[in-house]
Amino acid sequence: MSNNVAQSISDEVQLRMERSTKPVTLGISNRHLHLTEEHFKILCGTDKPTVKKELCQPGQFACEECFTLETEKGKMPGVRLIGPFRKETQVELSMSDAVKLGLKPPVRDSGKLENTPGIKITGTKGSVTIDHGVIIAKRHIHFAKADADNFKVKDGQLVRVRCGIGGDRETVFEAVLCRVSDSYKLELHLDIEEANAALAKNGDKTYIV
Amino acid sequence: MSNNVAQSISDEVQLRMERSTKPVTLGISNRHLHLTEEHFKILCGTDKPTVKKELCQPGQFACEECFTLETEKGKMPGVRLIGPFRKETQVELSMSDAVKLGLKPPVRDSGKLENTPGIKITGTKGSVTIDHGVIIAKRHIHFAKADADNFKVKDGQLVRVRCGIGGDRETVFEAVLCRVSDSYKLELHLDIEEANAALAKNGDKTYIV
Repeated sequence: MSNNVAQSISDEVQLRMERSTKPVTLGISNRHLHLTEEHFKILCGTDKPTVKKELCQPGQFACEECFTLETEKGKMPGVRLIGPFRKETQVELSMSDAVKLGLKPPVRDSGKLENTPGIKITGTKGSVTIDHGVIIAKRHIHFAKADADNFKVKDGQLVRVRCGIGGDRETVFEAVLCRVSDSYKLELHLDIEEANAALAKNGDKTYIV
Repeated sequence: MSNNVAQSISDEVQLRMERSTKPVTLGISNRHLHLTEEHFKILCGTDKPTVKKELCQPGQFACEECFTLETEKGKMPGVRLIGPFRKETQVELSMSDAVKLGLKPPVRDSGKLENTPGIKITGTKGSVTIDHGVIIAKRHIHFAKADADNFKVKDGQLVRVRCGIGGDRETVFEAVLCRVSDSYKLELHLDIEEANAALAKNGDKTYIV
Protein backbone atom coordinates (compact mmCIF):
# COMPACT_ATOMS: atom_id res chain seq x y z
CA MET A 1 0.00 0.00 0.00
CA SER A 2 1.48 3.38 -0.98
CA ASN A 3 1.95 6.12 1.60
CA ASN A 4 -0.60 8.25 -0.26
CA VAL A 5 -3.29 5.60 0.01
CA ALA A 6 -2.47 4.97 3.67
CA GLN A 7 -2.63 8.71 4.35
CA SER A 8 -5.98 9.09 2.62
CA ILE A 9 -7.48 6.14 4.53
CA SER A 10 -6.12 7.59 7.76
CA ASP A 11 -7.60 11.02 6.95
CA GLU A 12 -10.97 9.47 6.13
CA VAL A 13 -11.04 7.50 9.40
CA GLN A 14 -10.04 10.64 11.31
CA LEU A 15 -12.81 12.67 9.61
CA ARG A 16 -15.42 9.99 10.36
CA MET A 17 -14.35 9.84 13.99
CA GLU A 18 -14.63 13.62 14.30
CA ARG A 19 -18.06 13.74 12.68
CA SER A 20 -19.32 10.86 14.78
CA THR A 21 -18.94 12.97 17.93
CA LYS A 22 -21.15 15.80 16.59
CA PRO A 23 -24.88 15.16 16.51
CA VAL A 24 -27.26 16.66 13.95
CA THR A 25 -30.81 17.20 15.24
CA LEU A 26 -33.64 15.61 13.25
CA GLY A 27 -36.68 17.57 12.00
CA ILE A 28 -39.45 15.50 10.38
CA SER A 29 -41.47 16.98 7.50
CA ASN A 30 -45.08 16.05 6.84
CA ARG A 31 -46.65 16.83 3.46
CA HIS A 32 -46.78 20.60 2.95
CA LEU A 33 -46.68 23.30 0.33
CA HIS A 34 -45.03 26.63 -0.41
CA LEU A 35 -46.94 29.32 -2.33
CA THR A 36 -46.13 32.36 -4.40
CA GLU A 37 -47.70 35.58 -3.12
CA GLU A 38 -49.94 35.63 -6.19
CA HIS A 39 -51.22 32.09 -5.63
CA PHE A 40 -51.81 32.76 -1.92
CA LYS A 41 -54.01 35.77 -2.72
CA ILE A 42 -56.10 33.75 -5.20
CA LEU A 43 -56.49 30.82 -2.76
CA CYS A 44 -57.17 32.82 0.41
CA GLY A 45 -58.37 36.26 -0.70
CA THR A 46 -56.01 37.96 1.78
CA ASP A 47 -52.50 39.40 1.58
CA LYS A 48 -50.65 37.40 4.19
CA PRO A 49 -50.84 34.03 5.91
CA THR A 50 -51.25 33.67 9.68
CA VAL A 51 -48.19 32.32 11.48
CA LYS A 52 -48.97 29.20 13.50
CA LYS A 53 -45.44 28.28 14.59
CA GLU A 54 -41.87 29.37 13.87
CA LEU A 55 -39.77 26.49 12.50
CA CYS A 56 -36.17 25.60 13.30
CA GLN A 57 -34.88 27.15 10.05
CA PRO A 58 -34.61 30.93 10.59
CA GLY A 59 -37.46 32.87 8.94
CA GLN A 60 -39.48 29.74 8.08
CA PHE A 61 -42.90 29.21 9.68
CA ALA A 62 -45.88 26.87 9.60
CA CYS A 63 -49.11 28.74 8.79
CA GLU A 64 -52.65 28.32 10.02
CA GLU A 65 -53.75 28.02 6.38
CA CYS A 66 -54.22 24.51 4.99
CA PHE A 67 -55.22 23.54 1.45
CA THR A 68 -56.77 20.66 -0.46
CA LEU A 69 -54.75 18.95 -3.16
CA GLU A 70 -56.67 17.33 -5.99
CA THR A 71 -55.91 15.10 -8.96
CA GLU A 72 -58.10 12.92 -11.18
CA LYS A 73 -57.44 10.09 -8.72
CA GLY A 74 -58.31 11.79 -5.46
CA LYS A 75 -58.36 14.64 -2.97
CA MET A 76 -56.03 15.28 -0.02
CA PRO A 77 -57.29 17.93 2.42
CA GLY A 78 -55.42 19.63 5.25
CA VAL A 79 -52.06 20.23 3.54
CA ARG A 80 -50.30 22.96 5.48
CA LEU A 81 -48.65 26.08 4.07
CA ILE A 82 -45.05 26.78 5.06
CA GLY A 83 -44.05 30.45 4.77
CA PRO A 84 -42.64 32.81 3.69
CA PHE A 85 -43.75 33.16 0.06
CA ARG A 86 -41.58 31.53 -2.60
CA LYS A 87 -40.77 32.44 -6.19
CA GLU A 88 -42.52 29.27 -7.33
CA THR A 89 -45.34 27.26 -5.78
CA GLN A 90 -44.06 23.86 -4.58
CA VAL A 91 -45.87 20.85 -3.12
CA GLU A 92 -43.89 18.29 -1.08
CA LEU A 93 -45.45 14.83 -0.70
CA SER A 94 -44.40 11.47 0.67
CA MET A 95 -44.25 8.49 -1.70
CA SER A 96 -47.47 7.14 -0.15
CA ASP A 97 -49.20 10.51 -0.65
CA ALA A 98 -48.10 10.52 -4.29
CA VAL A 99 -49.47 7.00 -4.85
CA LYS A 100 -52.82 8.00 -3.31
CA LEU A 101 -53.00 10.97 -5.71
CA GLY A 102 -51.85 8.93 -8.72
CA LEU A 103 -48.73 11.06 -9.22
CA LYS A 104 -45.12 10.04 -9.84
CA PRO A 105 -43.08 13.01 -8.62
CA PRO A 106 -39.29 12.70 -8.59
CA VAL A 107 -37.11 12.94 -5.48
CA ARG A 108 -35.80 16.50 -5.69
CA ASP A 109 -33.96 19.19 -3.83
CA SER A 110 -36.31 22.07 -2.91
CA GLY A 111 -36.72 24.56 -5.75
CA LYS A 112 -35.61 22.14 -8.53
CA LEU A 113 -39.03 21.88 -10.15
CA GLU A 114 -38.36 21.28 -13.87
CA ASN A 115 -40.16 18.22 -15.24
CA THR A 116 -42.29 17.62 -12.15
CA PRO A 117 -46.05 16.90 -12.10
CA GLY A 118 -48.65 19.60 -11.52
CA ILE A 119 -51.69 19.55 -9.24
CA LYS A 120 -54.86 21.45 -8.35
CA ILE A 121 -54.70 23.40 -5.05
CA THR A 122 -57.87 24.72 -3.39
CA GLY A 123 -58.16 27.24 -0.55
CA THR A 124 -61.07 28.99 1.11
CA LYS A 125 -61.49 31.54 -1.67
CA GLY A 126 -60.31 29.89 -4.85
CA SER A 127 -58.29 27.29 -6.72
CA VAL A 128 -55.03 27.26 -8.65
CA THR A 129 -53.80 24.51 -10.96
CA ILE A 130 -50.03 24.41 -11.32
CA ASP A 131 -48.56 22.55 -14.31
CA HIS A 132 -45.44 21.55 -12.36
CA GLY A 133 -44.13 21.82 -8.80
CA VAL A 134 -44.92 18.52 -7.02
CA ILE A 135 -41.86 16.76 -5.58
CA ILE A 136 -40.79 14.20 -3.03
CA ALA A 137 -38.19 16.04 -0.96
CA LYS A 138 -34.60 14.86 -1.20
CA ARG A 139 -33.44 14.19 2.36
CA HIS A 140 -31.00 16.88 3.35
CA ILE A 141 -29.08 18.62 6.10
CA HIS A 142 -29.16 22.38 6.57
CA PHE A 143 -25.75 23.73 7.60
CA ALA A 144 -24.85 27.26 8.61
CA LYS A 145 -21.44 28.07 7.05
CA ALA A 146 -19.67 27.59 10.37
CA ASP A 147 -21.32 24.16 10.77
CA ALA A 148 -20.22 23.17 7.27
CA ASP A 149 -16.64 24.10 8.11
CA ASN A 150 -16.93 22.20 11.35
CA PHE A 151 -18.18 19.04 9.58
CA LYS A 152 -15.88 19.59 6.56
CA VAL A 153 -18.77 19.39 4.08
CA LYS A 154 -19.55 21.52 1.03
CA ASP A 155 -22.86 22.68 -0.40
CA GLY A 156 -24.23 19.98 -2.70
CA GLN A 157 -22.18 17.15 -1.18
CA LEU A 158 -23.91 13.84 -0.35
CA VAL A 159 -23.28 12.25 3.05
CA ARG A 160 -24.39 9.17 4.98
CA VAL A 161 -26.44 9.64 8.19
CA ARG A 162 -27.16 7.14 10.96
CA CYS A 163 -30.59 7.42 12.63
CA GLY A 164 -32.61 5.55 15.24
CA ILE A 165 -29.44 4.44 16.97
CA GLY A 166 -29.88 1.42 19.23
CA GLY A 167 -33.56 1.06 18.28
CA ASP A 168 -35.45 -1.71 16.50
CA ARG A 169 -35.09 0.08 13.16
CA GLU A 170 -31.65 1.64 13.21
CA THR A 171 -30.97 2.88 9.68
CA VAL A 172 -28.14 4.45 7.68
CA PHE A 173 -29.45 6.84 5.04
CA GLU A 174 -27.11 7.21 2.07
CA ALA A 175 -27.11 10.18 -0.30
CA VAL A 176 -28.23 12.85 2.17
CA LEU A 177 -27.80 16.24 0.49
CA CYS A 178 -25.78 18.93 2.28
CA ARG A 179 -27.17 22.45 1.87
CA VAL A 180 -25.01 25.28 3.20
CA SER A 181 -26.13 28.87 3.84
CA ASP A 182 -25.79 31.44 6.56
CA SER A 183 -29.57 31.61 6.63
CA TYR A 184 -29.67 27.96 7.83
CA LYS A 185 -29.44 26.28 11.20
CA LEU A 186 -27.94 22.80 11.59
CA GLU A 187 -30.76 20.27 11.10
CA LEU A 188 -31.45 17.00 9.24
CA HIS A 189 -34.75 16.90 7.35
CA LEU A 190 -36.44 13.56 6.68
CA ASP A 191 -40.00 12.95 5.58
CA ILE A 192 -42.38 10.90 7.73
CA GLU A 193 -41.78 7.64 5.88
CA GLU A 194 -38.02 7.98 6.20
CA ALA A 195 -38.31 8.81 9.90
CA ASN A 196 -40.73 5.92 10.53
CA ALA A 197 -38.44 3.51 8.67
CA ALA A 198 -35.79 4.34 11.29
CA LEU A 199 -38.19 4.71 14.26
CA ALA A 200 -36.76 8.21 14.54
CA LYS A 201 -38.48 11.10 16.33
CA ASN A 202 -38.40 14.87 16.02
CA GLY A 203 -35.39 16.19 17.92
CA ASP A 204 -33.44 12.90 17.76
CA LYS A 205 -29.67 13.09 17.57
CA THR A 206 -28.38 11.65 14.30
CA TYR A 207 -24.82 11.27 13.07
CA ILE A 208 -22.97 11.78 9.80
CA VAL A 209 -20.92 8.58 9.42
CA MET B 1 -2.39 -6.59 15.89
CA SER B 2 -2.56 -10.23 16.99
CA ASN B 3 -2.94 -13.00 14.43
CA ASN B 4 -6.35 -13.84 15.93
CA VAL B 5 -7.69 -10.34 15.38
CA ALA B 6 -6.23 -10.22 11.86
CA GLN B 7 -7.80 -13.59 11.09
CA SER B 8 -11.21 -12.54 12.38
CA ILE B 9 -11.15 -9.28 10.36
CA SER B 10 -10.09 -11.25 7.30
CA ASP B 11 -12.91 -13.79 7.85
CA GLU B 12 -15.44 -10.98 8.26
CA VAL B 13 -14.30 -9.25 5.07
CA GLN B 14 -14.43 -12.57 3.21
CA LEU B 15 -17.96 -13.26 4.52
CA ARG B 16 -19.16 -9.79 3.52
CA MET B 17 -17.68 -10.18 0.04
CA GLU B 18 -19.41 -13.55 -0.40
CA ARG B 19 -22.78 -12.22 0.78
CA SER B 20 -22.50 -9.12 -1.40
CA THR B 21 -22.63 -11.30 -4.52
CA LYS B 22 -25.93 -12.95 -3.54
CA PRO B 23 -29.07 -10.86 -3.92
CA VAL B 24 -32.14 -11.20 -1.71
CA THR B 25 -35.41 -10.30 -3.45
CA LEU B 26 -37.59 -7.66 -1.78
CA GLY B 27 -41.27 -8.19 -0.97
CA ILE B 28 -43.16 -5.14 0.37
CA SER B 29 -45.95 -5.61 2.92
CA ASN B 30 -48.93 -3.29 3.15
CA ARG B 31 -51.08 -3.27 6.30
CA HIS B 32 -52.78 -6.66 6.68
CA LEU B 33 -54.12 -9.11 9.21
CA HIS B 34 -54.06 -12.80 10.08
CA LEU B 35 -57.10 -14.43 11.67
CA THR B 36 -57.85 -17.48 13.74
CA GLU B 37 -60.41 -19.83 12.19
CA GLU B 38 -62.86 -18.90 14.96
CA HIS B 39 -62.52 -15.16 14.35
CA PHE B 40 -62.86 -15.63 10.57
CA LYS B 41 -66.16 -17.48 11.03
CA ILE B 42 -67.56 -14.74 13.26
CA LEU B 43 -66.43 -11.96 10.89
CA CYS B 44 -67.46 -13.58 7.59
CA GLY B 45 -70.06 -16.21 8.46
CA THR B 46 -68.30 -18.78 6.24
CA ASP B 47 -65.73 -21.53 6.84
CA LYS B 48 -62.92 -20.49 4.53
CA PRO B 49 -61.52 -17.37 2.89
CA THR B 50 -61.28 -16.99 -0.89
CA VAL B 51 -57.74 -17.04 -2.26
CA LYS B 52 -56.93 -13.92 -4.28
CA LYS B 53 -53.23 -14.54 -4.91
CA GLU B 54 -50.52 -16.94 -3.78
CA LEU B 55 -47.64 -15.12 -2.08
CA CYS B 56 -43.91 -15.77 -2.41
CA GLN B 57 -43.77 -17.61 0.94
CA PRO B 58 -44.98 -21.21 0.35
CA GLY B 59 -48.54 -21.79 1.59
CA GLN B 60 -49.22 -18.07 2.25
CA PHE B 61 -51.92 -16.28 0.26
CA ALA B 62 -53.69 -12.92 0.03
CA CYS B 63 -57.46 -13.32 0.40
CA GLU B 64 -60.36 -11.54 -1.27
CA GLU B 65 -61.70 -10.74 2.23
CA CYS B 66 -60.87 -7.30 3.65
CA PHE B 67 -61.83 -5.91 7.05
CA THR B 68 -62.31 -2.61 8.83
CA LEU B 69 -60.11 -1.78 11.80
CA GLU B 70 -61.55 0.54 14.43
CA THR B 71 -60.33 2.36 17.53
CA GLU B 72 -61.70 5.29 19.50
CA LYS B 73 -59.68 7.55 17.23
CA GLY B 74 -60.75 6.27 13.82
CA LYS B 75 -61.63 3.60 11.28
CA MET B 76 -59.41 2.01 8.64
CA PRO B 77 -61.32 0.03 5.98
CA GLY B 78 -59.95 -2.37 3.37
CA VAL B 79 -57.36 -4.21 5.46
CA ARG B 80 -56.62 -7.47 3.67
CA LEU B 81 -56.57 -10.94 5.20
CA ILE B 82 -53.45 -13.06 4.63
CA GLY B 83 -54.04 -16.81 4.97
CA PRO B 84 -53.86 -19.52 6.15
CA PHE B 85 -55.48 -19.30 9.59
CA ARG B 86 -53.18 -18.61 12.54
CA LYS B 87 -53.25 -19.69 16.19
CA GLU B 88 -53.70 -16.03 17.17
CA THR B 89 -55.25 -13.10 15.33
CA GLN B 90 -52.56 -10.55 14.41
CA VAL B 91 -52.82 -7.10 12.80
CA GLU B 92 -49.74 -5.60 11.10
CA LEU B 93 -49.70 -1.83 10.63
CA SER B 94 -47.23 0.79 9.48
CA MET B 95 -46.19 3.51 11.93
CA SER B 96 -48.38 6.01 10.04
CA ASP B 97 -51.37 3.64 10.23
CA ALA B 98 -50.81 3.28 13.98
CA VAL B 99 -50.71 7.06 14.46
CA LYS B 100 -53.97 7.45 12.49
CA LEU B 101 -55.62 4.89 14.76
CA GLY B 102 -54.11 6.35 17.94
CA LEU B 103 -52.21 3.16 18.76
CA LYS B 104 -48.61 2.66 19.85
CA PRO B 105 -47.80 -0.91 18.83
CA PRO B 106 -44.24 -2.15 19.27
CA VAL B 107 -41.98 -3.33 16.44
CA ARG B 108 -42.25 -7.11 16.72
CA ASP B 109 -41.44 -10.35 15.03
CA SER B 110 -44.60 -12.06 13.75
CA GLY B 111 -46.32 -14.11 16.45
CA LYS B 112 -44.70 -12.28 19.41
CA LEU B 113 -47.89 -10.63 20.61
CA GLU B 114 -47.51 -10.25 24.39
CA ASN B 115 -48.07 -6.68 25.62
CA THR B 116 -49.38 -5.36 22.30
CA PRO B 117 -52.50 -3.19 21.80
CA GLY B 118 -55.87 -4.62 20.83
CA ILE B 119 -58.33 -3.42 18.19
CA LYS B 120 -61.86 -3.91 16.88
CA ILE B 121 -62.11 -5.83 13.57
CA THR B 122 -65.31 -5.80 11.50
CA GLY B 123 -66.23 -8.05 8.57
CA THR B 124 -69.37 -8.54 6.51
CA LYS B 125 -71.13 -10.63 9.15
CA GLY B 126 -69.78 -9.50 12.50
CA SER B 127 -67.12 -7.89 14.67
CA VAL B 128 -64.39 -9.14 16.98
CA THR B 129 -62.46 -7.06 19.51
CA ILE B 130 -59.05 -8.47 20.33
CA ASP B 131 -57.35 -7.29 23.53
CA HIS B 132 -53.87 -7.69 22.01
CA GLY B 133 -52.34 -8.53 18.63
CA VAL B 134 -51.49 -5.26 16.86
CA ILE B 135 -47.84 -4.92 15.85
CA ILE B 136 -45.52 -3.07 13.52
CA ALA B 137 -43.64 -5.84 11.75
CA LYS B 138 -39.94 -6.20 12.45
CA ARG B 139 -38.17 -6.15 9.08
CA HIS B 140 -36.93 -9.62 8.32
CA ILE B 141 -35.54 -12.05 5.78
CA HIS B 142 -37.07 -15.47 5.22
CA PHE B 143 -34.40 -18.10 4.57
CA ALA B 144 -34.88 -21.73 3.60
CA LYS B 145 -32.33 -23.79 5.54
CA ALA B 146 -30.11 -24.16 2.47
CA ASP B 147 -30.16 -20.36 1.99
CA ALA B 148 -29.21 -19.83 5.62
CA ASP B 149 -26.23 -22.15 5.20
CA ASN B 150 -25.32 -20.37 2.00
CA PHE B 151 -25.39 -16.93 3.69
CA LYS B 152 -23.92 -18.29 6.96
CA VAL B 153 -26.75 -16.88 9.06
CA LYS B 154 -28.70 -18.43 11.93
CA ASP B 155 -32.36 -18.12 12.91
CA GLY B 156 -32.77 -15.03 15.09
CA GLN B 157 -29.59 -13.31 13.91
CA LEU B 158 -29.73 -9.62 12.96
CA VAL B 159 -28.09 -8.49 9.71
CA ARG B 160 -27.63 -5.28 7.73
CA VAL B 161 -29.28 -4.97 4.29
CA ARG B 162 -28.58 -2.46 1.52
CA CYS B 163 -31.60 -1.38 -0.56
CA GLY B 164 -32.36 1.08 -3.36
CA ILE B 165 -28.82 0.77 -4.66
CA GLY B 166 -27.73 3.64 -6.89
CA GLY B 167 -31.03 5.49 -6.37
CA ASP B 168 -31.84 8.82 -4.76
CA ARG B 169 -32.65 7.13 -1.46
CA GLU B 170 -30.16 4.32 -1.12
CA THR B 171 -30.46 3.00 2.44
CA VAL B 172 -28.79 0.49 4.73
CA PHE B 173 -31.27 -1.11 7.12
CA GLU B 174 -29.66 -2.30 10.33
CA ALA B 175 -31.15 -4.96 12.61
CA VAL B 176 -32.94 -7.01 9.95
CA LEU B 177 -34.12 -10.26 11.57
CA CYS B 178 -33.15 -13.58 9.97
CA ARG B 179 -35.88 -16.21 10.12
CA VAL B 180 -34.90 -19.71 9.00
CA SER B 181 -37.29 -22.55 8.14
CA ASP B 182 -37.68 -25.12 5.41
CA SER B 183 -41.17 -23.74 4.89
CA TYR B 184 -39.65 -20.40 3.77
CA LYS B 185 -38.35 -19.06 0.48
CA LEU B 186 -35.53 -16.49 0.38
CA GLU B 187 -37.12 -13.01 0.58
CA LEU B 188 -36.65 -9.69 2.43
CA HIS B 189 -39.84 -8.23 3.91
CA LEU B 190 -40.10 -4.47 4.46
CA ASP B 191 -43.23 -2.45 5.11
CA ILE B 192 -44.29 0.32 2.75
CA GLU B 193 -42.66 3.11 4.74
CA GLU B 194 -39.34 1.28 4.88
CA ALA B 195 -39.50 0.54 1.15
CA ASN B 196 -40.45 4.14 0.29
CA ALA B 197 -37.63 5.47 2.48
CA ALA B 198 -35.24 3.57 0.21
CA LEU B 199 -37.21 4.13 -3.05
CA ALA B 200 -37.26 0.33 -3.24
CA LYS B 201 -39.76 -1.65 -5.31
CA ASN B 202 -41.25 -5.12 -5.09
CA GLY B 203 -38.82 -7.59 -6.64
CA ASP B 204 -35.74 -5.38 -6.17
CA LYS B 205 -32.44 -7.06 -5.50
CA THR B 206 -31.10 -6.18 -2.06
CA TYR B 207 -27.85 -7.24 -0.40
CA ILE B 208 -26.78 -8.34 3.07
CA VAL B 209 -23.70 -6.23 3.79
